[in-house]
Amino acid sequence: MAQKEIEMAFLPQTINDLCSGNVEDLIGKERTVFGWAKSCRIQNRGNLLFVSLQDGTTLTHVQSLLFRQDFDDATFAQLSEIKTGWSLRFTGTFVKSPAKGQLIELKVSNAVILGKCPSDYILQKHSATESGASFDTLRQFPHLRCRSTVFQSINRIRNKLMRSTHELFGSHGFVWAATPLITFSDCEGAGEAFLVKTTYPRTELPEGGFFGQQGDGFLTVSGQLEGEMMAMVHSRIYTFGPTFRAEKSKTSRHLAEFWMIEPEVCFVSLDQLIQLACAYVVRCVSDILKECTEDVKITLEYTLKDKFSGKELYEEQCKRIDQLMSYTQKPFAVISYTQAISELENAVEGGHTFVEPVFWGVDMSSEHEKYLTDVVHRTPVVVHSYPAEIKAFYMKRYTTRDTNTTPNVDVDTRCVQSFDLLVPGIGELIGGSIREHDLELLTNVMKSKDMDLTAYQPYLDLRLFGTVPHGGFGLGFERLVQFVTGIHHIQDCIPFPRAY
Amino acid sequence: MAQKEIEMAFLPQTINDLCSGNVEDLIGKERTVFGWAKSCRIQNRGNLLFVSLQDGTTLTHVQSLLFRQDFDDATFAQLSEIKTGWSLRFTGTFVKSPAKGQLIELKVSNAVILGKCPSDYILQKHSATESGASFDTLRQFPHLRCRSTVFQSINRIRNKLMRSTHELFGSHGFVWAATPLITFSDCEGAGEAFLVKTTYPRTELPEGGFFGQQGDGFLTVSGQLEGEMMAMVHSRIYTFGPTFRAEKSKTSRHLAEFWMIEPEVCFVSLDQLIQLACAYVVRCVSDILKECTEDVKITLEYTLKDKFSGKELYEEQCKRIDQLMSYTQKPFAVISYTQAISELENAVEGGHTFVEPVFWGVDMSSEHEKYLTDVVHRTPVVVHSYPAEIKAFYMKRYTTRDTNTTPNVDVDTRCVQSFDLLVPGIGELIGGSIREHDLELLTNVMKSKDMDLTAYQPYLDLRLFGTVPHGGFGLGFERLVQFVTGIHHIQDCIPFPRAY
Repeated sequence: MAQKEIEMAFLPQTINDLCSGNVEDLIGKERTVFGWAKSCRIQNRGNLLFVSLQDGTTLTHVQSLLFRQDFDDATFAQLSEIKTGWSLRFTGTFVKSPAKGQLIELKVSNAVILGKCPSDYILQKHSATESGASFDTLRQFPHLRCRSTVFQSINRIRNKLMRSTHELFGSHGFVWAATPLITFSDCEGAGEAFLVKTTYPRTELPEGGFFGQQGDGFLTVSGQLEGEMMAMVHSRIYTFGPTFRAEKSKTSRHLAEFWMIEPEVCFVSLDQLIQLACAYVVRCVSDILKECTEDVKITLEYTLKDKFSGKELYEEQCKRIDQLMSYTQKPFAVISYTQAISELENAVEGGHTFVEPVFWGVDMSSEHEKYLTDVVHRTPVVVHSYPAEIKAFYMKRYTTRDTNTTPNVDVDTRCVQSFDLLVPGIGELIGGSIREHDLELLTNVMKSKDMDLTAYQPYLDLRLFGTVPHGGFGLGFERLVQFVTGIHHIQDCIPFPRAY
Repeated sequence: MAQKEIEMAFLPQTINDLCSGNVEDLIGKERTVFGWAKSCRIQNRGNLLFVSLQDGTTLTHVQSLLFRQDFDDATFAQLSEIKTGWSLRFTGTFVKSPAKGQLIELKVSNAVILGKCPSDYILQKHSATESGASFDTLRQFPHLRCRSTVFQSINRIRNKLMRSTHELFGSHGFVWAATPLITFSDCEGAGEAFLVKTTYPRTELPEGGFFGQQGDGFLTVSGQLEGEMMAMVHSRIYTFGPTFRAEKSKTSRHLAEFWMIEPEVCFVSLDQLIQLACAYVVRCVSDILKECTEDVKITLEYTLKDKFSGKELYEEQCKRIDQLMSYTQKPFAVISYTQAISELENAVEGGHTFVEPVFWGVDMSSEHEKYLTDVVHRTPVVVHSYPAEIKAFYMKRYTTRDTNTTPNVDVDTRCVQSFDLLVPGIGELIGGSIREHDLELLTNVMKSKDMDLTAYQPYLDLRLFGTVPHGGFGLGFERLVQFVTGIHHIQDCIPFPRAY
């Protein structure tokens, strides 16, 4: 902490700095606070102003009192105009508060209006609904919506999830690997890619310019292939960076630009990889419940308040928090694809109707996945060992030699050593697999799929030079934010959404 | 630590895990180690193999002994073939080592060859130069060069610099802000932007598809504008993400795709912003010297070994480390642009010749900047208060009201409240400024520059709704890596470089 003081004591104190200790120690002390008016009301026949000041570093506001007698008339007249969104600098002395729900308040002796807000400010009204603007409406004004209470909370939770990710992987020896965003092949076939071009005429770009002989670049759809290259260096790596999909999907679960975390680990089994994925998600949920308690309550409140109010809203909020808590306390369900299909077939036999058919070999749709998490298991569910037919070329196929490598399942040589982690309300949060590390087996699969081997030479080189068993998974960061916040639409889980 | 054990005990131990405690505690213990052969030699008339095993989690190797008598003949014959780059799993017992420079070695009882390496493996030879391949040669094989000793060290340093960045800003209440990579305006005019397009025919994309009415997207050249939006929410934010410039610059300091850190802070002065920038760089250098000591020695060795060898190399290495250390011990030089020009003019008067002319108003070139850092001050130099003419529209101009806001300089109303942090050997590492937060002053500047105000409406809205004084800066992450590693070419500071 001494270091902290030395490093940053030159910056103005934030409200979070002020409130991070025992706030009653502030009583009698003079402080300067910067921020924006969250609300303002005039009392005592116009002789007293209450201004609730926030600065976005914490949910806590500084309740500020401005008495007419402490200012000249012209200044107090200006201050009486303060409305939500005005930016202010208050200097004053903290005093014990007589009000319920707060311990201290700031008796302001010097007030400066830094900036005003015209009356068409979209976040004007102070209420639980904050101007009553819906998520849909606010989405049109990303530069302002981020200021609203719920979006502040979402972003502080994003911030914490990012930190938990780096802390978890960092403290266990995973090296962060920066994989490139401009790529030259749509390696995984994970989805439609965006093209990257320059504005220069091609004749001005000898030898293809920025993109070598290839002419065009693509925006990466996954850092996995380069992640594997880096795993061959450091044994354990993870990526944390933006990823792009040009899919024409207008859903509450799809973004064209999103952040992705892709750990890749050498010398692991599918079982270990699944444990890693579960430990990561549990750590994230646990950290948010511990360190962003109030922010999670806010996001759940905003998610639920269309359907519930008053006591019911409160109870539903508690139920959701208990549910999140329960995910950190008991192990996730782990079932094979074959078991999953059989559970869905049982549902059909029991009278449940799915839009899409259920049979062994089907690529499960979102309704199937949600049925497993929301109805059958009521907890996150790992489904592993999918049929090779519906999975990517690089996933390692079971052979008859693989006995007892996977939990609860007999080896099925029609299947690959893959898994998805499905979570209630959302569906797929994580997808991963053991990669085929045998050069001959890999090239055989690629040939059978008529793939261009030369385009994958670096990837094949990994199997040629010191190949090792390895595997990894990808997690869509905004889906993780959705999962812990309960926010319905993924476009509300990133400050500046890019989507179809 | 108990938590660490619970969280990840299911993963195989890395060499870093093994060596993180007192290694002599391992004596007499059986362990399994995975990794790649760094070197292999046969001794004792072919009856003993020494294999140095590494796994990239640390510079430390596990020196392994394989005695003929412990294996059947066929196995030992195979093991005798082990060469650099082969992947291996060794199980054995640690014993006290009689050799100099190492405390323990692994007496192997069970050895499995996971993967071999054909003889054209580029990193084959074990020596200080590692196959003698130059940086230029290795750059053509990014998927393999990352395995070489020096690139392992560079990437571990990258990893630590990323962590220091998040730790420093995180522990001081800065919220990480994800700014979008696909943007719709080249806001800053910071450089030529790449175009982003879809492969879909436009007729299939109603209302512009992914990019709204605008038709085309661009790859961001700076997250600053959105960073400012987020600073208005949380008071202190920083970005950490990829940034793109389509400049046709083939230099050792330019990448087309690079990572950038852009803190943005409300309620600060230029002086505070400069202190923040200096504190950040000092913290990074200090952390690397403390926690990546051996890796820095490696990168300096590889940088210097073309010019020095033997004792001279060692001395030069020490000198460089002392130099880095000195940057953390005394404050950086802080001078105004006007002072900088006068220092350069003095140099010209004293007989020094610059290619580019020196006069008040000139946009200093790289040779000017290097002269200030490498010759005049021999330390990082902050140059502040540049002429408005050569700086971006959003930088706040000094007015006659700004007295005593800046260190060591009288207010010069021809200038803006900007600064660059220049570092020895590289030049500009950081550029930043206080932003114009007054709506009228900002629009006046933009009109005088014939800018399209409607394209900047969200940016102007920040000044309309609760504007506050604020400022920020940008640091190119790969230049920071260059600075602390001494690596000459910026393309060697990122695993998969994208450049013109």
